[in-house]
Amino acid sequence: MLAEIITIGDEILIGQIVDTNSAFIAKQLNKIGVSVYQITSVQDDRDHILKAFAEAEANADIVIVTGGLGPTKDDITKKTITHYFDDTLKEDISVRKNIEHLWEVFIKKPLTQVNLDQALVPSKADVLMNKYGSAPGIWLERNDTVFISLPGVPFEMKALIDDEVIPKLRSRFKFPYIQHKTFLTYGLGESMVAERIEKFEDELPAFIKLAYLPSLGRVRLRLSAKGNDKLVVEIEMERQIQLLMPQIADIFVGFEEDLSIESVIGTYLTEQQKTVATAESCTGGLLAERFTTNAGASKYFKGSIVSYTKEAKVNVLKVSEALIDEHSVVSGEVAEAMAKNVLQLFNTDFAIATTGNAGPTKDDTAEDLGIVYIAIATKTHVYSEKFSFGNHRVKVINKAANKAFEMLQKEILKK
Amino acid sequence: MLAEIITIGDEILIGQIVDTNSAFIAKQLNKIGVSVYQITSVQDDRDHILKAFAEAEANADIVIVTGGLGPTKDDITKKTITHYFDDTLKEDISVRKNIEHLWEVFIKKPLTQVNLDQALVPSKADVLMNKYGSAPGIWLERNDTVFISLPGVPFEMKALIDDEVIPKLRSRFKFPYIQHKTFLTYGLGESMVAERIEKFEDELPAFIKLAYLPSLGRVRLRLSAKGNDKLVVEIEMERQIQLLMPQIADIFVGFEEDLSIESVIGTYLTEQQKTVATAESCTGGLLAERFTTNAGASKYFKGSIVSYTKEAKVNVLKVSEALIDEHSVVSGEVAEAMAKNVLQLFNTDFAIATTGNAGPTKDDTAEDLGIVYIAIATKTHVYSEKFSFGNHRVKVINKAANKAFEMLQKEILKK
Repeated sequence: MLAEIITIGDEILIGQIVDTNSAFIAKQLNKIGVSVYQITSVQDDRDHILKAFAEAEANADIVIVTGGLGPTKDDITKKTITHYFDDTLKEDISVRKNIEHLWEVFIKKPLTQVNLDQALVPSKADVLMNKYGSAPGIWLERNDTVFISLPGVPFEMKALIDDEVIPKLRSRFKFPYIQHKTFLTYGLGESMVAERIEKFEDELPAFIKLAYLPSLGRVRLRLSAKGNDKLVVEIEMERQIQLLMPQIADIFVGFEEDLSIESVIGTYLTEQQKTVATAESCTGGLLAERFTTNAGASKYFKGSIVSYTKEAKVNVLKVSEALIDEHSVVSGEVAEAMAKNVLQLFNTDFAIATTGNAGPTKDDTAEDLGIVYIAIATKTHVYSEKFSFGNHRVKVINKAANKAFEMLQKEILKK
Repeated sequence: MLAEIITIGDEILIGQIVDTNSAFIAKQLNKIGVSVYQITSVQDDRDHILKAFAEAEANADIVIVTGGLGPTKDDITKKTITHYFDDTLKEDISVRKNIEHLWEVFIKKPLTQVNLDQALVPSKADVLMNKYGSAPGIWLERNDTVFISLPGVPFEMKALIDDEVIPKLRSRFKFPYIQHKTFLTYGLGESMVAERIEKFEDELPAFIKLAYLPSLGRVRLRLSAKGNDKLVVEIEMERQIQLLMPQIADIFVGFEEDLSIESVIGTYLTEQQKTVATAESCTGGLLAERFTTNAGASKYFKGSIVSYTKEAKVNVLKVSEALIDEHSVVSGEVAEAMAKNVLQLFNTDFAIATTGNAGPTKDDTAEDLGIVYIAIATKTHVYSEKFSFGNHRVKVINKAANKAFEMLQKEILKK
């Protein structure tokens, strides 16, 4: 079963907004066994949209179109899809009632004709009701291809996909069984991992695919199996997982389905009622920021001292000036002192400290560009490691953060 | 002049990653006067890629391809583009030297054959050197269409676009003269701004466009002019700027060309040789992280204390416990004490403090979800303001950060 996604809107093609809708739709379709053949973004232009529709119909069983359903004049998707299906627009009374309800309860402004026109839908279409906005989803079929048109506002589109589109697709088509398993690995580059498991990959059966998803110091390996017989898929996936695991045991940190490492750490710490603080030089607050993005972080994250100058390390973090002068500010000794001191200041069970030179220039540090020391402290011990993270500032900072979380996770899991 | 962008990679079509590359490329192309006709994402599949190449060549003068240049075997862009151009691969000695240099200086791991194979490029191609990774950019031409293939890793792709692709396109083609001017405004919603300057917008000449770029409490207004006569464009733009300025004087905070407000602040502070520190509760390190993303931040940013618990506010930031008990942790009084204390601790000229409830639950604070107090301190005075930023955690945190930077900028510019 193949799908195509078409996103309509000049704002995407001038780079004003990033198209996040397509990734969401693709993920939800994949979960039920629909492969996305192509994602196409086109301008608010009638002929271009018609051309994209025709190409998609030729390739796909399901065509999902987002954007261009709003009330402003450059949004022309509805008229174009109506024309494509040789249809005319007529008012849908349930949509009109939904709009009147939304305006009365939430918008509390006068309803204009432009708003009411959103109740006009192609006469042959099934309506997919939009709980959060005035533009409904539209479902049209021809020659065994389903066209689904959705508004481009992300939270309206997401609710329509989950509540309307997926259930209706499930009842309309018979899907194969799909299983995914994602292995999160740290500490080895993509090409090294690939070389190591080359034989495993070559010998995978045709219905199981392996994907490499690298990002700044971590590589996710994703096995995806698809088949009509659920039992066959599950048995073979289990066999392949057992084959793969011993080959990546030293770099494997967990199975991961869209979770960040800091939220996994947060779960451990909450369960164990332990706490953490950070002392950050080169990561500049990124560790704290990543911890606190997660709701509930105040249960385990007590705080951070970002000490971006030598003076701050001495005055605020109470690192000895003599130690800094002896070893330089970018050193394992200073990283360890930072970790120990921040642990005491915040009275936590764990602490992370980072110090390094993120660039773009070497400045007055003794160490090369990209050199970072990361220290982990607990109530009983402290240690540090030295890393070299390359010459790109943003990359150095993010790799350092990922590595710091990896070290903390390993420390927490130590028995 | 038309361009198409083709992104290659199963990870996009399974929804594992959001394609942020296309928006960046589209934006940079638009700046030099190239319109993007279509963005197409296709799988790591040879025939599908070839079909996309042929369609793009038929429509566009410039085809930019990203992804599928990595060393693993599911990355097949290079082989496919070589085939499409009836070419063969041969080693490029400068790319090989770049790879050897990167591995020796930064990666510090053994070079494998897989890495070295990245130096193989189509024999007819111009090489675009990748400072940050092993996969070079590739430039190929046929029948007046330029094909440019770039690695999919965002920071490698971005550097290649800015440092190699745009300059080479400028020397290869004659572009119309383009001028942009972006006005950063704060404190008024998009529709209110639009209403206020409706007449100005209606009377703009056809070759000058106005775009509204709203995001979390700020609206950027972008004027874009395009024409063959540089002088005509510049004179008319200047005239329109003079017309617009008085109409937005009260909400205007500066001109901005993709610059973040924190980097604008960084420039001011560097010029004035002034320094800043932050004390963060609800922003959780985001202010520090945003300051330190900019190279050279150590000149003006001394550090931050992220105090995520009451205990940390008392013990580390030295806020009086009685003050917290009297006014609650989310209050203007506590925000002001945090700002004053962090200014003293880090011995800076300015300080920002944030305290609030980002949600998702009200917890034990007296204030409602989304209430944030932001304080600004200088060596002579301190003040705070109260804001209500809604019920979405990530939105509250980011709106608070934007507002804090806005308050600091206004403070710095006060005379």
